[in-house]
Amino acid sequence: MGDEARRPMLGGEVDAVVAARGGGLRERLARVEERLRTIAAEAAPPLDGHAGATIAAGGKRLRPLLVLLAGGEPAVGVDDAGLVRAAVAVELIHSATLVHDDVLDAAPLRRGRPTVWATHGRAAATATGDYLFARAFGELVDNGRADEIRILSDASSALAAGELLQREDAFRTDVTLERYLHRCELKTARLFEAACRLGALETGAPDEDLGAFGRRIGLAFQLLDDVLDVSGPVERTGKPRGTDLLDGTVTLPFILARELDPSLRDAARPETPDEAEALCDRIAASGALDDARARALEIVAEAKREMPAPDAALLLVADSVVERYS
Amino acid sequence: MGDEARRPMLGGEVDAVVAARGGGLRERLARVEERLRTIAAEAAPPLDGHAGATIAAGGKRLRPLLVLLAGGEPAVGVDDAGLVRAAVAVELIHSATLVHDDVLDAAPLRRGRPTVWATHGRAAATATGDYLFARAFGELVDNGRADEIRILSDASSALAAGELLQREDAFRTDVTLERYLHRCELKTARLFEAACRLGALETGAPDEDLGAFGRRIGLAFQLLDDVLDVSGPVERTGKPRGTDLLDGTVTLPFILARELDPSLRDAARPETPDEAEALCDRIAASGALDDARARALEIVAEAKREMPAPDAALLLVADSVVERYS
Repeated sequence: MGDEARRPMLGGEVDAVVAARGGGLRERLARVEERLRTIAAEAAPPLDGHAGATIAAGGKRLRPLLVLLAGGEPAVGVDDAGLVRAAVAVELIHSATLVHDDVLDAAPLRRGRPTVWATHGRAAATATGDYLFARAFGELVDNGRADEIRILSDASSALAAGELLQREDAFRTDVTLERYLHRCELKTARLFEAACRLGALETGAPDEDLGAFGRRIGLAFQLLDDVLDVSGPVERTGKPRGTDLLDGTVTLPFILARELDPSLRDAARPETPDEAEALCDRIAASGALDDARARALEIVAEAKREMPAPDAALLLVADSVVERYS
Repeated sequence: MGDEARRPMLGGEVDAVVAARGGGLRERLARVEERLRTIAAEAAPPLDGHAGATIAAGGKRLRPLLVLLAGGEPAVGVDDAGLVRAAVAVELIHSATLVHDDVLDAAPLRRGRPTVWATHGRAAATATGDYLFARAFGELVDNGRADEIRILSDASSALAAGELLQREDAFRTDVTLERYLHRCELKTARLFEAACRLGALETGAPDEDLGAFGRRIGLAFQLLDDVLDVSGPVERTGKPRGTDLLDGTVTLPFILARELDPSLRDAARPETPDEAEALCDRIAASGALDDARARALEIVAEAKREMPAPDAALLLVADSVVERYS
């Protein structure tokens, strides 16, 4: 799977974003972390340990960051608890999906730590995901807004559909570009969109416009993640090149490469890491990576261009998505 | 697993309940079915097919029935859409759990039909469960009541914890009675309680009292289901006796039997269906089944006794839980 969560944290970029936005952003991010830990600890044992490990494994917290940024800086004295709750809810959904993915992928590690699947088995990981799903809605409901629950439910439904689509398409080397993009919309872009909309709704910002920004950033994020699987280097991604190809996940670089070099169609199913690396080299030689990167950058450019009111911090997030891969 | 959903439908009992309650109950039950089908069909392909198959596999719809009954008969002209939505949401959560259970159990059949796991694999079944979870909250939110979402989220969290507890306790023949009862509370009673509370909240009935009724009925339901696994007969349960024992699920009959006949402690891990049948015979010979049944019946009696305002239809449901096993 081309899962961005296996990549190193943004780290420095978040600091830059915090500096650009200032205000209560850093403190709000800390409250999101604290609340995520509390929710994990509230699970009935032994689920509390598994949920805690899932949350502690961390990640970039890019989705909560988008919620908080899209919410803008609430006026002094305005309660920002709803913004924090929305950020927590989005990250819970994301975490739930990851822990279920790990079961399906039989993934031993995520972000360098043993997964719940690896340490406690399928049942533990399945239940952990279900728990995090349930708590996401339990958290968001305190905002008292039906539209927010609906947005989260729709995005979660899309995520499930997207994950499945990816697996149904496994090893289908003739998957169309349209279908690939639809899959990325479902499995990545929709939750980014939801993050931005939820933040906007909490502070009365234009949620449709910010949602469109989030959706584009999410799509570009996924495209660039798929490029990274082919381009490496391993020091940056933390996994061998061609991992998606070995898993049968057919992504943009291959889809573009098979047009540029039709002989690739017969090479699409590597069976060893060495074969996967060799296929990556051939995809790169076709020029498809430049094409794929250019498409992603155009989507980011469009996201920035169409932004309702240019916001320094959100622009930085958009740029950081690009920079991770340049 | 001692899962009641593998049992034949209540059928006749539902007809009796409908007759006792009259009013719009039958029509509301039909609307629940229709809505469940629609929600399945709304999933992005290929998830729609899997969700549809899960819903079509049916079951007793006991939880939606409890929602509708606890809601009473709304006054003429009062909108009952919220009641139907709550019934749908509870069944979606239940279905989500079952489809995830089938993955963990590698179950080929449920209610006599091939499971999504069997026909389309783990990824399809995992995604189907996630989708149904997400849609449950998306459905309930239209009632515009934060307390209802919270109840559903809490019950879903409990369910996940209960399922996990069961699997963590697998093959632990020294599991205590207290821990067993706690597991049943989490994995069965809490969703029954939620069903009754949601129905009550929609019509202004006393939700705590009706919730306590539901919780007791749910607990008795699980206890009797566990008795049935040992007692059979297979014509009634549709599965060989001792299926739980073979799966390592240690339930009330064994827990009581090991006190009555300490030699059973060494026989607690049957490895073949024949050994499981033999263990069932020994448990039955210990007198533990009568004891287990009596405990369940006492819980049902207590549920009826503590009912805030005796309701003929709910009393019938309580009795039907008992009658399935007598």
